Amino acid sequence: MKILIINPNISESVTELIVQEAIRSCLAGTEIVAETADAGVAYIETRAEAVFGAHAVLKKVAKHYEHVDAVIVAAYGDPGVCAAKELVDIPVIGLTEATLAEAHLIGGRYSLVGISERIGVWYRETVRYYGFESRMASYRGLSKGFAHVACVQQEKRQMLLDLCLSCVEQDGADSIILSGAPLAGLAREIETQIPVPLIDGVGAAMRAAQSLASRGSLVRKRGSYAAPPKKESKGLPIEIERLLHKKFQLNDG
Amino acid sequence: MKILIINPNISESVTELIVQEAIRSCLAGTEIVAETADAGVAYIETRAEAVFGAHAVLKKVAKHYEHVDAVIVAAYGDPGVCAAKELVDIPVIGLTEATLAEAHLIGGRYSLVGISERIGVWYRETVRYYGFESRMASYRGLSKGFAHVACVQQEKRQMLLDLCLSCVEQDGADSIILSGAPLAGLAREIETQIPVPLIDGVGAAMRAAQSLASRGSLVRKRGSYAAPPKKESKGLPIEIERLLHKKFQLNDG
Amino acid sequence: MKILIINPNISESVTELIVQEAIRSCLAGTEIVAETADAGVAYIETRAEAVFGAHAVLKKVAKHYEHVDAVIVAAYGDPGVCAAKELVDIPVIGLTEATLAEAHLIGGRYSLVGISERIGVWYRETVRYYGFESRMASYRGLSKGFAHVACVQQEKRQMLLDLCLSCVEQDGADSIILSGAPLAGLAREIETQIPVPLIDGVGAAMRAAQSLASRGSLVRKRGSYAAPPKKESKGLPIEIERLLHKKFQLNDG
Amino acid sequence: MKILIINPNISESVTELIVQEAIRSCLAGTEIVAETADAGVAYIETRAEAVFGAHAVLKKVAKHYEHVDAVIVAAYGDPGVCAAKELVDIPVIGLTEATLAEAHLIGGRYSLVGISERIGVWYRETVRYYGFESRMASYRGLSKGFAHVACVQQEKRQMLLDLCLSCVEQDGADSIILSGAPLAGLAREIETQIPVPLIDGVGAAMRAAQSLASRGSLVRKRGSYAAPPKKESKGLPIEIERLLHKKFQLNDG
Amino acid sequence: MKILIINPNISESVTELIVQEAIRSCLAGTEIVAETADAGVAYIETRAEAVFGAHAVLKKVAKHYEHVDAVIVAAYGDPGVCAAKELVDIPVIGLTEATLAEAHLIGGRYSLVGISERIGVWYRETVRYYGFESRMASYRGLSKGFAHVACVQQEKRQMLLDLCLSCVEQDGADSIILSGAPLAGLAREIETQIPVPLIDGVGAAMRAAQSLASRGSLVRKRGSYAAPPKKESKGLPIEIERLLHKKFQLNDG
Amino acid sequence: MKILIINPNISESVTELIVQEAIRSCLAGTEIVAETADAGVAYIETRAEAVFGAHAVLKKVAKHYEHVDAVIVAAYGDPGVCAAKELVDIPVIGLTEATLAEAHLIGGRYSLVGISERIGVWYRETVRYYGFESRMASYRGLSKGFAHVACVQQEKRQMLLDLCLSCVEQDGADSIILSGAPLAGLAREIETQIPVPLIDGVGAAMRAAQSLASRGSLVRKRGSYAAPPKKESKGLPIEIERLLHKKFQLNDG
Repeated sequence: MKILIINPNISESVTELIVQEAIRSCLAGTEIVAETADAGVAYIETRAEAVFGAHAVLKKVAKHYEHVDAVIVAAYGDPGVCAAKELVDIPVIGLTEATLAEAHLIGGRYSLVGISERIGVWYRETVRYYGFESRMASYRGLSKGFAHVACVQQEKRQMLLDLCLSCVEQDGADSIILSGAPLAGLAREIETQIPVPLIDGVGAAMRAAQSLASRGSLVRKRGSYAAPPKKESKGLPIEIERLLHKKFQLNDG
Repeated sequence: MKILIINPNISESVTELIVQEAIRSCLAGTEIVAETADAGVAYIETRAEAVFGAHAVLKKVAKHYEHVDAVIVAAYGDPGVCAAKELVDIPVIGLTEATLAEAHLIGGRYSLVGISERIGVWYRETVRYYGFESRMASYRGLSKGFAHVACVQQEKRQMLLDLCLSCVEQDGADSIILSGAPLAGLAREIETQIPVPLIDGVGAAMRAAQSLASRGSLVRKRGSYAAPPKKESKGLPIEIERLLHKKFQLNDG
Repeated sequence: MKILIINPNISESVTELIVQEAIRSCLAGTEIVAETADAGVAYIETRAEAVFGAHAVLKKVAKHYEHVDAVIVAAYGDPGVCAAKELVDIPVIGLTEATLAEAHLIGGRYSLVGISERIGVWYRETVRYYGFESRMASYRGLSKGFAHVACVQQEKRQMLLDLCLSCVEQDGADSIILSGAPLAGLAREIETQIPVPLIDGVGAAMRAAQSLASRGSLVRKRGSYAAPPKKESKGLPIEIERLLHKKFQLNDG
Repeated sequence: MKILIINPNISESVTELIVQEAIRSCLAGTEIVAETADAGVAYIETRAEAVFGAHAVLKKVAKHYEHVDAVIVAAYGDPGVCAAKELVDIPVIGLTEATLAEAHLIGGRYSLVGISERIGVWYRETVRYYGFESRMASYRGLSKGFAHVACVQQEKRQMLLDLCLSCVEQDGADSIILSGAPLAGLAREIETQIPVPLIDGVGAAMRAAQSLASRGSLVRKRGSYAAPPKKESKGLPIEIERLLHKKFQLNDG
Repeated sequence: MKILIINPNISESVTELIVQEAIRSCLAGTEIVAETADAGVAYIETRAEAVFGAHAVLKKVAKHYEHVDAVIVAAYGDPGVCAAKELVDIPVIGLTEATLAEAHLIGGRYSLVGISERIGVWYRETVRYYGFESRMASYRGLSKGFAHVACVQQEKRQMLLDLCLSCVEQDGADSIILSGAPLAGLAREIETQIPVPLIDGVGAAMRAAQSLASRGSLVRKRGSYAAPPKKESKGLPIEIERLLHKKFQLNDG
Repeated sequence: MKILIINPNISESVTELIVQEAIRSCLAGTEIVAETADAGVAYIETRAEAVFGAHAVLKKVAKHYEHVDAVIVAAYGDPGVCAAKELVDIPVIGLTEATLAEAHLIGGRYSLVGISERIGVWYRETVRYYGFESRMASYRGLSKGFAHVACVQQEKRQMLLDLCLSCVEQDGADSIILSGAPLAGLAREIETQIPVPLIDGVGAAMRAAQSLASRGSLVRKRGSYAAPPKKESKGLPIEIERLLHKKFQLNDG
């Protein structure tokens, strides 16, 4: 099985972190292809930054979709994930949707722990988009800045651990999602210190992608995830124009 | 990996159906242990019947939990599933929660198709318990009785197929959950006739159980899924009394 | 009028407390029959313990339903209540549903005060099951253990009183539900110290049961509370098998 | 026990209907005092008409509250009910809140059947105000006008019966509320023709009022149902000015 | 354009405050007609007081509606606003609905700051009536009394400012509504001290009224805001009786 | 006042329609600047197409924001609207948010009528994002294709009119939103044939933009609409890179 992992941000060092955890989490024999956004920001924290990320995701999906079995969009907040699902018949999985699925199966209420307070609003909106807000216990994020996003999990480990414990003690969390690609792999290192299950975004996405891909390709001829109806387009990245063109031909055929 | 599958009903023929689909859906090398309820009804359709099923589930979980890696409760409506999660550190997965997770990852709104109209109320209540109601497009069930529950998918195949199509055409479903253990395996046979993804309960539960079990055992020392606090008990099935006794000792230790 | 009160737990001393408050709350001429669960735990605090309680309730309901006018299930969390409603044509009332009805009629928002923090999650889930969550101001529970459940209201009176006052001062409660059968009768003793109405579970259930029983027996030939459709069963407690058998005969007739 | 029944509309003939059902529904020895609004409309169907009704209710409550044990506001939509609760320490019960409480105790989902389609919007808003909307299956109302509101239940009996049956067959109602004071008493006459429990507004309000009044007067020194804080007033009906004056004195004392 | 502003309370000094802000907020050439309630209280804080206010509003609307282009009901909590919309074809705007619209267009979540803690419950219920509760971050109100309502914004300026800052720092507000007519004009004076947009009730209502009035009169022949169906009435204020009479003639014609 | 109108699609002929209605709806003396997306599709119907539109919107906003008083994003579904609000201090208004505000002020429940069935899902998701779903009565869209999007309102006028009437008769709409920029101006032509208020997207957006712009620039130093925190970026359209650069300098200063 071949999995495309897209980092919708421009941080190559975060892509590296993501790939390492992906390798630790995948089934034997899985091949991983990683892409980092050509355009965008260091990490997505707001609605505007998510627009840049979504655009980058569609371009990378269009480039690779014919040669992989599933796609992981490796950012919490799932930029471009639902959009990409419309365009391809393979599973496209975002970190938010995958961790929510895992928190749901573990049971009860979950909290999110993330790398800034600001980012929490965007995460809440994503959770609400998926209709999971009634089971969310809380969001807690780092209140102070950090030196570099790819090292935030080392630099702020103790604070992140304290936030997790507060989610359990004060917010009633039955599980905790370490939300944000820059936290990839942290769960393995601190899980013995936390009295409820910890969920890693990249790990959960890898499990979800492989699980879903094992079902075979997805049939999307009707409903709101069928390919967009044929219409005029122009000026889009060449990979996307080509993908749309092929879809329109299929719809016509 | 060793998976316990519990049919919380007394129908051995349905257990057979379930096991067949479980074998088709599991990873290579998986060992399956199947149990059929000693007490209960032919299939669970109401709140009262679910109480019988939940009781049977706890008994079987208590009997086997030390020797398996995960448990599947093979009935839609998930009798005893959340209760069992409190008692053991391995994943316990119900058909409803597993299919909801898969419908969520596929994206958009889902419909349920089931074997009777009556059963739909109980299913809706289960979906609402999990907080997934905002993405449910509809429930549609067979309006007439059937000869035997283990053969309902053969006897009523055309009607079930028509219900699925109505979910797509009239209710706007982006995916369809074939809900009810007696429909195990049907998705494979009719999926080419339905223009959106079809989700099989047993298949989804097997994927969820194996995915979750690959994380290792679940840490549940705090929160509402930790083991029940120590207290006096009496008169419970011997397997359950023994399990509670061990848990209380652990808590003391 | 004859009212069956079932304590779904094994604590005879709590049954005693319940009966005393029931006697103080009933209309003149009411006869009370009390039953304590044969199997289960000292008091229900979790989902698993509620399964044991529900099973015990159905057995006791099946034993007595032909000889009483209404049933009270005397535990907060209402184990087996909705299940039992399906099986009999007389009112079956749980402490949660009765206190919610009374809080609703008193008006505005209510808080729950209970005997442990852990138990609060189960209570919240019960409240949500009934669709009353939008009017719940808060749950507050004792943070420390107690010597014996039947004496918790004496031992922890000051703490319980303080929790009630916090619900008013900090959470905006317009009324307070003393939730948990072990608190039966406490409202009478502390109501002058609390500036909003206090609701006793057993008292509210007795008022609800008598009020509803005065309407005559309930017609449940259709809908999700009609008796379960006829189907094969085995291994259930003898009283339940007999009840199901009679129901199936009626449905056939 | 002495119960004040206020018809917030000007229809004396409807007051008569209401009183007859009240007498049939009350406990032995209950005394009923009835009042009809001095100002208003024939029956309340809209938000504006409800303002007139609420004003009339407060005036009548202020006139009688010192001499009765409870008040029933005998219109569906509960004009002035929550307002009146703030002003007096005895129970004030509206038909909507009482029937919702009874439907809740009966269990599951309920439908409303009323005398016009237009009135259904106002009823839905009232149900939503109380936070009960998640259990409402449907509203169905007469689609055509009627000769006189006090005779609508005779004139349209067959249509009303058909609406009830549609609520059961098509909307999944587990009980039906005959909503609207002009339907007082109808439930007794048609209940054998409907396969789920029928709830009469006046009957339910009488049961609720007597049940609540048996608890003694309500303590409302804090929360949003305490008497309004002291402030200047002028121009209000003399009974209301006198009541406010007394409350302000109490608050000062 | 001619705008009627109704103060549903009896405080002439507050009417003065309102008119001053209305003049500052309106388009050039706008004529303002102001009315103060003949009957009622100094300021509306509770459900009962809102009934008095709603009654006063309908009377004033009925007196002026044929000679103005829009009506502003200048109290937070919108007493009589929805009722008045049914009776006339010109826009009727309440401070709550106008500020909610503006907060919505500004984006994200809003908090309310008001003049007492008690009043917050009534405001929350109004917000919920409009269906806007999911975007409300918090309500914060003055915890202590004030000398005179028309001077509260001077007397408590620092406290009000602190409440606004707490809404931003602790509750995550993206904008703040200064809720309550007695706060009219305050936003202009403190806006430079608050790091998110401040919304003035009278200003927002003026903008909404003029915007909506520029569309021309509202067509309300169907739906729940059409005039109430013809029926008998009596005893209402003469202006209201005359309005109803005209509406009924129109409906007949 | 100078208003920028962005058509996030590539259809110049639709831009023309939009501008014509904008001119009819604006205050005297308003200057309109119109931009059509350089890249994208003919009209946005799906989540993927909305990503293209959002990207185009941010680019055009960044190009013009220093020279205009407000921005209108002239597509229903509001692509890029919330993202753009983060980047600039002037009002940015989408057709969805503006029409929802107007429907809210008109009162009661609203329906949407649009140009395809497919597009309805995306519209519902947008409505839900804004938290307005509880007041949405229905969506109804054209079931068949059309010759050219810029002429759909002429070609399908009768069908659109019939859809509007169905919203009133069957869905209980109190107002109707003609949703979709290609329907700009239609409301003026058919409003006399519809018995409830009709809301035009471009007209509503123009009213909202001018109303909000009259308040002066928006203060967004805190909250989730403050400018994104400073961080590395690359590869974005030059106008956006420049805007981000200026924001970061301001934040530093």
